[in-house]
Amino acid sequence: MTDFLATRAQFHIPEGVIYLDGNSLGPLPRAAASRIAAMVEDEWGEMLIRGWNEAGWMHQPRRVGDRVARLIGAAPGTVVMGDTLSIKVFQALAAALEMRPDRQVILSDTGNFPSDLYMAEGLCALLDGRARLKTVPPEEVAGHIDERVAVLMLTEVDYRTGRRHDMPALTAAAQAAGALTVWDLAHSAGAMPVDLAGADADFAVGCTYKYLNGGPGAPAFIYVAPRHADRARPALAGWLGHAAPFDFEHAYRPGAGIERMRVGTPPVIQMAALEAALDIWDMVDMNDVRARSVELTERFIRGVEAACPALVLASPREAALRGSQVSFRHPDGYAIMQALIARGVIGDFRAPDVLRFGFAPLFIGPEDVDAAIGTLAEIMEGALWDRPEYSRRAVVT
Amino acid sequence: MTDFLATRAQFHIPEGVIYLDGNSLGPLPRAAASRIAAMVEDEWGEMLIRGWNEAGWMHQPRRVGDRVARLIGAAPGTVVMGDTLSIKVFQALAAALEMRPDRQVILSDTGNFPSDLYMAEGLCALLDGRARLKTVPPEEVAGHIDERVAVLMLTEVDYRTGRRHDMPALTAAAQAAGALTVWDLAHSAGAMPVDLAGADADFAVGCTYKYLNGGPGAPAFIYVAPRHADRARPALAGWLGHAAPFDFEHAYRPGAGIERMRVGTPPVIQMAALEAALDIWDMVDMNDVRARSVELTERFIRGVEAACPALVLASPREAALRGSQVSFRHPDGYAIMQALIARGVIGDFRAPDVLRFGFAPLFIGPEDVDAAIGTLAEIMEGALWDRPEYSRRAVVT
Repeated sequence: MTDFLATRAQFHIPEGVIYLDGNSLGPLPRAAASRIAAMVEDEWGEMLIRGWNEAGWMHQPRRVGDRVARLIGAAPGTVVMGDTLSIKVFQALAAALEMRPDRQVILSDTGNFPSDLYMAEGLCALLDGRARLKTVPPEEVAGHIDERVAVLMLTEVDYRTGRRHDMPALTAAAQAAGALTVWDLAHSAGAMPVDLAGADADFAVGCTYKYLNGGPGAPAFIYVAPRHADRARPALAGWLGHAAPFDFEHAYRPGAGIERMRVGTPPVIQMAALEAALDIWDMVDMNDVRARSVELTERFIRGVEAACPALVLASPREAALRGSQVSFRHPDGYAIMQALIARGVIGDFRAPDVLRFGFAPLFIGPEDVDAAIGTLAEIMEGALWDRPEYSRRAVVT
Repeated sequence: MTDFLATRAQFHIPEGVIYLDGNSLGPLPRAAASRIAAMVEDEWGEMLIRGWNEAGWMHQPRRVGDRVARLIGAAPGTVVMGDTLSIKVFQALAAALEMRPDRQVILSDTGNFPSDLYMAEGLCALLDGRARLKTVPPEEVAGHIDERVAVLMLTEVDYRTGRRHDMPALTAAAQAAGALTVWDLAHSAGAMPVDLAGADADFAVGCTYKYLNGGPGAPAFIYVAPRHADRARPALAGWLGHAAPFDFEHAYRPGAGIERMRVGTPPVIQMAALEAALDIWDMVDMNDVRARSVELTERFIRGVEAACPALVLASPREAALRGSQVSFRHPDGYAIMQALIARGVIGDFRAPDVLRFGFAPLFIGPEDVDAAIGTLAEIMEGALWDRPEYSRRAVVT
C-alpha cells in the first residue's frame, strides 16, 4: 500500500500553496537540488569528459528509460529518454508511417495536444503528399478507423478536458484494420496505470515534467514495441542511435532495438533532477495512485458542483472515462483562475474558457481538495474575480 | 584586453589535471552550481508553473541565443537555443533544401562529424529520392560546388584534424552557384571569432558543451540569416515555434523569424548552467581568444615535434588553417592517450589513430602546454603506454 503522506513529504510545496497544476509542471522533489549538485560538482566538475563512462552518462537514457517503463506497463529495454515530446512524436510517427507504405492517413482527434498535430503536419509536408493528417472529434475516432489509416495517433488523456480514450480498445480496432498506433502519454504517465504491453501498443511517447515531476524541460521518452524495435527506421538518424557511435562510420547503421531512437547528446543535468523524482516513484504502486486520484477528483467535482453552480463540468462525469484532472468551464474562466492563484490555489486556464485542475496523489490529499473548493466557492459567491488585475491576459502555460 | 588569469579563475579544474579536452566537454564554471541551485530552489521550487512567466523561462531560448550570437558574429534576434545539435542540423537542412526545390544535392565532406551526415541521410530517406547526400574529401569541396548543389553543409573545423574550412570563401562560392549554406560551428563557437553576418552565411548550428562550457547535455543553437528567417519552413513544427503557442490553434502557423525554429519545452535547468558559462564569456574578446589559441597550439606543435618524433602531426601546420585543437597520429594512439590521462593530461582519442588535444584559452595557459609536452615526451621516450591497462579499449567520447 502506497504511503501518500510519505510521498508528500518528499516534495517541496511552497507555504500557503495548494498546487493543482502538477499536470503541467510537477513540484520540486526535496532531493533534487542535492542530486543535481552532486552530479554537477562530483561528476561534471571532477570527472570532466570521463563522466560519460565513469558516471554512466552515456547509458543513462536507457537506465532512466527502464525506470519510466515500469510506470507505463513496458518491459525493460523498450523505453529510452531524450529530446522533447514533440521530437519523440515525430520519430514515432515517421517510423510508423514508413511501416505502412500503402496507406496515407494519420488519424487523430481535434482534442489532441496541438504540438502533436503540428508535428504530424510538418512531417506530412516533408513527405510531400505521401501522407495526410485527418482529425475528427474525440468521440468519433473509432468510427473513422478504416483501411486507409496508416497510423492512429492519439493522446490518451485530453489536455483540456481530461477525457480518456480507451487505449486497449482503440489499439485493437486500429490493428484489426491494419493500422499502427502512436500513443502520447503526456497526461497518463504518473497519473494512472498504463499498460502498453497489455494493450499491445505499437509506439508511445510522453514527457516527464508533468505528473512524473522531472522539472522544467525534463527529457521526453519513447517506447517502441519489441516486435517493431529492430525494424523501425529512425528518421532522425542521430549518432547516438547508431549501432557503433564511437566508430564514427560515414554511413548510418541503426542501433539495436530502442537504442536507435536516441538522437544526440542526452541532457545529463536535467536527467539528474528526473532521477530524484523517480526515486519517489519507486515508493509507489500505480494502482494505489489511481484509486486515490479517483477519490480526489470525485470529491472535487461533487464539492464544486454543490458550491459553485455557475461552473460547468467539462470533464467526463464517469471516473473511468477521465484521467487525473478535472476541468470546468466559465466565460470568465481566466479571471477566476487568476483570483484563485492570488489566493494560493494554483490550477491553470486553457482558452477559451477552461479552468483546469490536476490531482497528483503523490502530494495532493483530500484536505487540499476541500480547501480548494472552499476558496473557489468564496470567489464565485463574492464575484471576487471581477477585478481588473485578474482579467489582464498574460501568457499562461 | 581579455584577462585570461581572470577567466581561468572562474573554472573548477581538478587538482593535478591539465585539461586539453574542452573541445569535447568544457569544464565546470565555478558559478554554475549555485546558479543551478538558485534556479531549482527559488524558481522551480517556489514559483512552480509561474516560473515560465515570472522567471522568464519561456523567453530564455531567445535571450540566451542573443548571448551566443555575439560570439559568432550574428545580430541579436537571429539565434535561438534548444534541442541537440543533430536536431538543429536536421532543421536547418530541411529548411534550406526546401528553398532550392529544383536541386537535389546536399554537398558535404568526409571529415564532417558523422551525426551531421547521418541526419542528412535520414532526411534524404524521408524525402524519398528528392535529395541525396554527396561527400567529398575536405580539400575538394570547392571543386564540387555546382548548379546541382542545393545545400553546402559543412562543419567549419574538422572534429578530428582541426582543419578549418574557409567559411567566407566557400559561402560565397556556394551562393554564386545558387546554393545555400549550413555551417556547423561545434568546434568554432568559443574557439575563435566567427563572423556569420560578415560571411553572409545562410544557416548555422552548434552546440554549447564544448568550448562554450555549458555542461554535459547543454542545448544547441541555430542561426538563420535574417533574409531567410521569415521564409524558412520548419520541418519540425513544434508548438513553441508556433506564432501563438498558447492559443492552441489546430493548424500550425510558424512564428516570426527565428522563433519558428523552436520546437518543444526548453531545458531550463541545463540553460541555467549555460548562463553561468556565458557570464564568463561576457569578460572575453574573441580576437584575444584567437591570438592566445594560436600561441598555445603553435607552442604545442613545436614542443611535441621536438620531443616526440614518433607522433605525426594530423592538423594543418599553418595556424590560419586550424581551429583551436591539434591532433597527432600514432598507431598506438589509444594506449598513449590512456597513459596520458592516467598522468592527469586529459585529451582524447578518435579512431583509428588520432590523439586530439584542445586548447581553450579561457582556462589553458602556456605552462599547461609545456607540462603536457613534458608528460607526453616521458611516455613516448619510456614507451610507458605499452601496458595492458592502457590498451583495453572502452567507449571514449
